[in-house]
Amino acid sequence: MVSFTGPIAQLLDELGRLPGIGPKSAQRLAFYLLERPRGEVERLASALVEARERVRRCAICCDWTDQEVCPICQDPRRDPSLICVVEHPKDVRALEKTGQFRGRYHVLHGALSPLDDVGPEDLTLVQLRKRLEEGGVQELIVATDPDMEGEATAFELVRLARPFGIKVTRLARGLPEGADLDYADDSTLRLALEGRREL
Amino acid sequence: MVSFTGPIAQLLDELGRLPGIGPKSAQRLAFYLLERPRGEVERLASALVEARERVRRCAICCDWTDQEVCPICQDPRRDPSLICVVEHPKDVRALEKTGQFRGRYHVLHGALSPLDDVGPEDLTLVQLRKRLEEGGVQELIVATDPDMEGEATAFELVRLARPFGIKVTRLARGLPEGADLDYADDSTLRLALEGRREL
Repeated sequence: MVSFTGPIAQLLDELGRLPGIGPKSAQRLAFYLLERPRGEVERLASALVEARERVRRCAICCDWTDQEVCPICQDPRRDPSLICVVEHPKDVRALEKTGQFRGRYHVLHGALSPLDDVGPEDLTLVQLRKRLEEGGVQELIVATDPDMEGEATAFELVRLARPFGIKVTRLARGLPEGADLDYADDSTLRLALEGRREL
Repeated sequence: MVSFTGPIAQLLDELGRLPGIGPKSAQRLAFYLLERPRGEVERLASALVEARERVRRCAICCDWTDQEVCPICQDPRRDPSLICVVEHPKDVRALEKTGQFRGRYHVLHGALSPLDDVGPEDLTLVQLRKRLEEGGVQELIVATDPDMEGEATAFELVRLARPFGIKVTRLARGLPEGADLDYADDSTLRLALEGRREL
């Protein structure tokens, strides 16, 4: 059994670290890329570096953006009194696809998880509190995942919002238990938005 | 619906071009990488460029290598009179895993496919002919995929070898019809090697 060394081994190793990419997929991707024109591989490499360098968190909602403030936070047609709080940037995409939500977002970049050592200070709660302090927010829609971490995070958000007298609602549990929010289909998400209940 | 622009869109686009990576996987990978340390992303990017720059085809068997001649072709313990001809570099890995083959390889980098406009000139047949001309080869084991393209390629190899009076064998059809060679389990591959038949 001859295994690879040098740059092929390196590439297989790096690809194999990506989530959902096992050794077989890493090999498939590596061998695919070795057959492609050099310019194409360089374009992928620089897209990776560029994105990592230029993309940052929106100064307001913490979603990914290459500007100081993301397009949704800049959009005057989006209702600033309604903030939908999600765990991850991908959840913003899933909710936007329903076309039903005209408020703004707040991206926590995670959920509370004592087992994984994720505490309140690891989420973007400081930025959220700042938005609440600035006033004008009437409702927080908690759209964290319907699992243990998401529930724990929801209660942390209730605690955060209480001093401001802001209504806190939670997406209806039309979502299947334990699932990833961004894998729900559009109409489940739409029903969940409509059936949100006060905490 | 707000979709991405700038470097995020670019990255999603580049990742989405990879085989087996749909829009959802591309997003998952992109968002994962945005959360990783910059150095880690740069390491992946340079592994891609490095591999594409330094990896080339072995001067003898056309398998991927970062040297002039690959380790198998350099290995004096590997029987040079026995050449196993495969479509892709991944097939070499699959066969090596059986631990049953002590000859050498020849990687065609494809299979004949008139529909996909792949003719004999697109495969590494010139290099294979050169190896046969140099003498010492007693048997070609044809290990192309057990599908239409693989069969067509097998017959092209018979035609190529005939003037040299070299025995040409084909892996036994223990392999499931229409499957990819490198997804077969080790013992199926081992049986197929043992049961090879002359063409």
